[in-house]
Amino acid sequence: MTRLCRTFQTAPAAIPNDNSAKFLVSGLTSKGFQAPDWLVPDIEDGTAPSMKDEAVDNIIEHIPDHADDFAGDILPRVEWAYDDANARERGIEQVTRLAEAVGEELDGFVFPKVGRLDDVRDAAGVIADAERDAGLPEGTLEMAIILETAPGRSDLREICQYATDSRLSGLVFGPVDYTAELGGRTLDGERPRWDGLLEALSNETSAADIVAIGGPFDQLFHERAGVTYYNAEGYADQVAYEATIGIDGSWSLHPKQTEQANRIHMPTVEEMERDLHKIESFNEAKREGTGAVVVDGQMVDEATYKNFANTVKTVRAIDETHPAQTEAYYDDDLLARARDVELIFG
Amino acid sequence: MTRLCRTFQTAPAAIPNDNSAKFLVSGLTSKGFQAPDWLVPDIEDGTAPSMKDEAVDNIIEHIPDHADDFAGDILPRVEWAYDDANARERGIEQVTRLAEAVGEELDGFVFPKVGRLDDVRDAAGVIADAERDAGLPEGTLEMAIILETAPGRSDLREICQYATDSRLSGLVFGPVDYTAELGGRTLDGERPRWDGLLEALSNETSAADIVAIGGPFDQLFHERAGVTYYNAEGYADQVAYEATIGIDGSWSLHPKQTEQANRIHMPTVEEMERDLHKIESFNEAKREGTGAVVVDGQMVDEATYKNFANTVKTVRAIDETHPAQTEAYYDDDLLARARDVELIFG
Amino acid sequence: MTRLCRTFQTAPAAIPNDNSAKFLVSGLTSKGFQAPDWLVPDIEDGTAPSMKDEAVDNIIEHIPDHADDFAGDILPRVEWAYDDANARERGIEQVTRLAEAVGEELDGFVFPKVGRLDDVRDAAGVIADAERDAGLPEGTLEMAIILETAPGRSDLREICQYATDSRLSGLVFGPVDYTAELGGRTLDGERPRWDGLLEALSNETSAADIVAIGGPFDQLFHERAGVTYYNAEGYADQVAYEATIGIDGSWSLHPKQTEQANRIHMPTVEEMERDLHKIESFNEAKREGTGAVVVDGQMVDEATYKNFANTVKTVRAIDETHPAQTEAYYDDDLLARARDVELIFG
Repeated sequence: MTRLCRTFQTAPAAIPNDNSAKFLVSGLTSKGFQAPDWLVPDIEDGTAPSMKDEAVDNIIEHIPDHADDFAGDILPRVEWAYDDANARERGIEQVTRLAEAVGEELDGFVFPKVGRLDDVRDAAGVIADAERDAGLPEGTLEMAIILETAPGRSDLREICQYATDSRLSGLVFGPVDYTAELGGRTLDGERPRWDGLLEALSNETSAADIVAIGGPFDQLFHERAGVTYYNAEGYADQVAYEATIGIDGSWSLHPKQTEQANRIHMPTVEEMERDLHKIESFNEAKREGTGAVVVDGQMVDEATYKNFANTVKTVRAIDETHPAQTEAYYDDDLLARARDVELIFG
Repeated sequence: MTRLCRTFQTAPAAIPNDNSAKFLVSGLTSKGFQAPDWLVPDIEDGTAPSMKDEAVDNIIEHIPDHADDFAGDILPRVEWAYDDANARERGIEQVTRLAEAVGEELDGFVFPKVGRLDDVRDAAGVIADAERDAGLPEGTLEMAIILETAPGRSDLREICQYATDSRLSGLVFGPVDYTAELGGRTLDGERPRWDGLLEALSNETSAADIVAIGGPFDQLFHERAGVTYYNAEGYADQVAYEATIGIDGSWSLHPKQTEQANRIHMPTVEEMERDLHKIESFNEAKREGTGAVVVDGQMVDEATYKNFANTVKTVRAIDETHPAQTEAYYDDDLLARARDVELIFG
Repeated sequence: MTRLCRTFQTAPAAIPNDNSAKFLVSGLTSKGFQAPDWLVPDIEDGTAPSMKDEAVDNIIEHIPDHADDFAGDILPRVEWAYDDANARERGIEQVTRLAEAVGEELDGFVFPKVGRLDDVRDAAGVIADAERDAGLPEGTLEMAIILETAPGRSDLREICQYATDSRLSGLVFGPVDYTAELGGRTLDGERPRWDGLLEALSNETSAADIVAIGGPFDQLFHERAGVTYYNAEGYADQVAYEATIGIDGSWSLHPKQTEQANRIHMPTVEEMERDLHKIESFNEAKREGTGAVVVDGQMVDEATYKNFANTVKTVRAIDETHPAQTEAYYDDDLLARARDVELIFG
């Protein structure tokens, strides 16, 4: 099982408001199913160019107050672009300041608009430098990247293979910039879903054992006959599709999206009951010394056992960071079984 | 034209039954359209862990009795997994025993769950060793692999290029294990079709001139108002889709599926009439010395001629191994023309 | 912005008609929206084998008369095939004759059925030799290739990367030969759309900053109740899909198709108004010294500015070669703004 990231929630780190850290603090103090696995304070596209410095200040000011109570991981998104040296310089400064001031509270950084493998190496080098300058142990800070450029997509396989011996731990799809870079025009208002890219993203991140995250869904609200309402169907459909093709987590722009994606990327009660039953039956048969184990007509071997174990390990990972979520989602008996069952393989 | 494999029929080599070789023998003695091009006695997922040895015994016992009468190729599927050393050890033993005992009756082996190119090379090495130990001429035994892991898919292009100077002669899609490895969840009961993978599989096997086979279709039966019936529509739709994108053959789990796939992957009467007419007209024009040949408004050159010739060569390959099928499918005149026509190119 | 090629119109360079250069001359003298960005006099599949020499003669005879008045680029398609040495020899002779006789009037050559990167290099070498022999400055003649073989698709990424330091400036999809090479059968009359290939084509050409062109649409006419009519819907749907995924231009087989594709690949009035407004507002804010620029609630930075600038640059490129098209399509005021606006970035 790769790292837990059902939800990748971006929050602008500074907004034009009396309380410019409003969304940042709201993300840091989220509760229950609104608490994301990864909170991404956004200094890039979510923050106005004039507020970039204030965004860094906000993170430095507010993270220390809330990091202990925030159960998930925190990875700010800094500025970067393979084809814009100014953006890269600002990103270097942002990473350096943040690592120095609050590096111990952070889990890593998110780099947008990376290009070919060399550019990804450069971005990793920026973190390594900042980590060293800040006196943090090597490898403390992870890196996730947004897959949203033509050269980045072209080097997808090599970039994922690079994860094996680097701090790269996740890839996130960025469909808006990607479509613009390819020159795609939304003539009828619809962007392509880029199925080929998503398949390759799921495959290469699986081969590298790192996390794959889908793109943002920005049609947050619908309107009908004068009433505006949250577009729960549209977002849930996208998240369910992502789960179907093995994308591990989903991008969230809003606490309601986080609520939904946290649930959809959680093993269902049905999946839990099925997989726990297989594991428990296998364990019992093993204790009785049987060679082959057949459960409900299906043979269970080490490989299939590991798939069942993945379900349990995912639930345990959620349970450790967000017990309020597991306790609300599963009944006591099922959760106790997941906590207690012995995992022989996996 | 690559090798003939319209149908890749797996048969568990040992089942929990008084007659544990029932399915194996039934495959070996199949007749007419139920006779597959490739019969794959399955020692891997189709056979219970406790029956693996018996599966090998069954193959050794029954193949010699039936191999002469079985017109197609026989390639047992052994155990293997790029991420499981125990499975690989069992696979080595299975290949070694089978090559030694019945190597002369076999056409090769099928390796499941291969990983990157290095792992495919290792599998090929296992066959080479067993071949040599059994005193068989080098290259007698071919290899097909199941494409069902993330690293295998990642290395698809390199694996197919490796076929040029190796015994690798076919790739077969394994959607169930593939989806599980990528972490895909069947939330609404439907697995993705993995269109991107299938396109790449068709392309790379074509570039390498080896065989591409689609994945199994396991919704064998439907039930309606108390009556259970064979799902002929569902399977035929999948096979037709595979034919449309240039996948050469289909996986069969049942004699009825073999009947259907053998027919769908056979040139239709319409295709035969069209292509024979083009070839015959071209041949006649050549004899008359005309430079350019236009048939029914279409120019025919060496490249297009070869496409028409492929149809004839496929029919001839089927006709050689399964004359009962060609004689039942085409009328006498059409078949005689396919047998007799001169192929100037191709 | 890559080179302008909204329309890639092929015209058989010789047809069995009293006036065998009819289609060639008609393409060269096309007016208004029927004038393609690239005219491709076709010596390959569009011309009968017996008329290849006459096709070359026609180009040599008619190009000089019309090249000055034809605003677009002219790139003849010669014979070539990675797997047919005879076709390659004829192609070499055709390129050599044409470069010698009318090389100064040509913009390059189109090579069909290229294979792996080595074959593409060979084709480029043929142009280089002919260019030198004809005494033309190095690099005068560009090269476009048809992507229509399995090895060509397999090497797509490497072929596009090769464009960086070569005369390769465009890739064009050839679905009919591609489907045949993969062994795809049109059982229900429909060819696959090859979405995975098209996605990869759009991505790799964007990464290499070269032009991507879609495949031909040959269902030119429909018939209903005895009346045959131009299939405007079918072609426009295909062209719009191509624009959506970032394919830069479309293949045209007919002046009516050229009319449609020229329009669809032109920025719409809506796109022009939106992007000009963003650019003008940004420029004004910059003059006033504001740091961050927000236009209509969207932040504009160098990267997004470049996307808006691309729209203007495309219109300017069309305006330079086909002012009759821009003047007919946009009102005077909008066109004047596009001509006059300062582009700070891009």
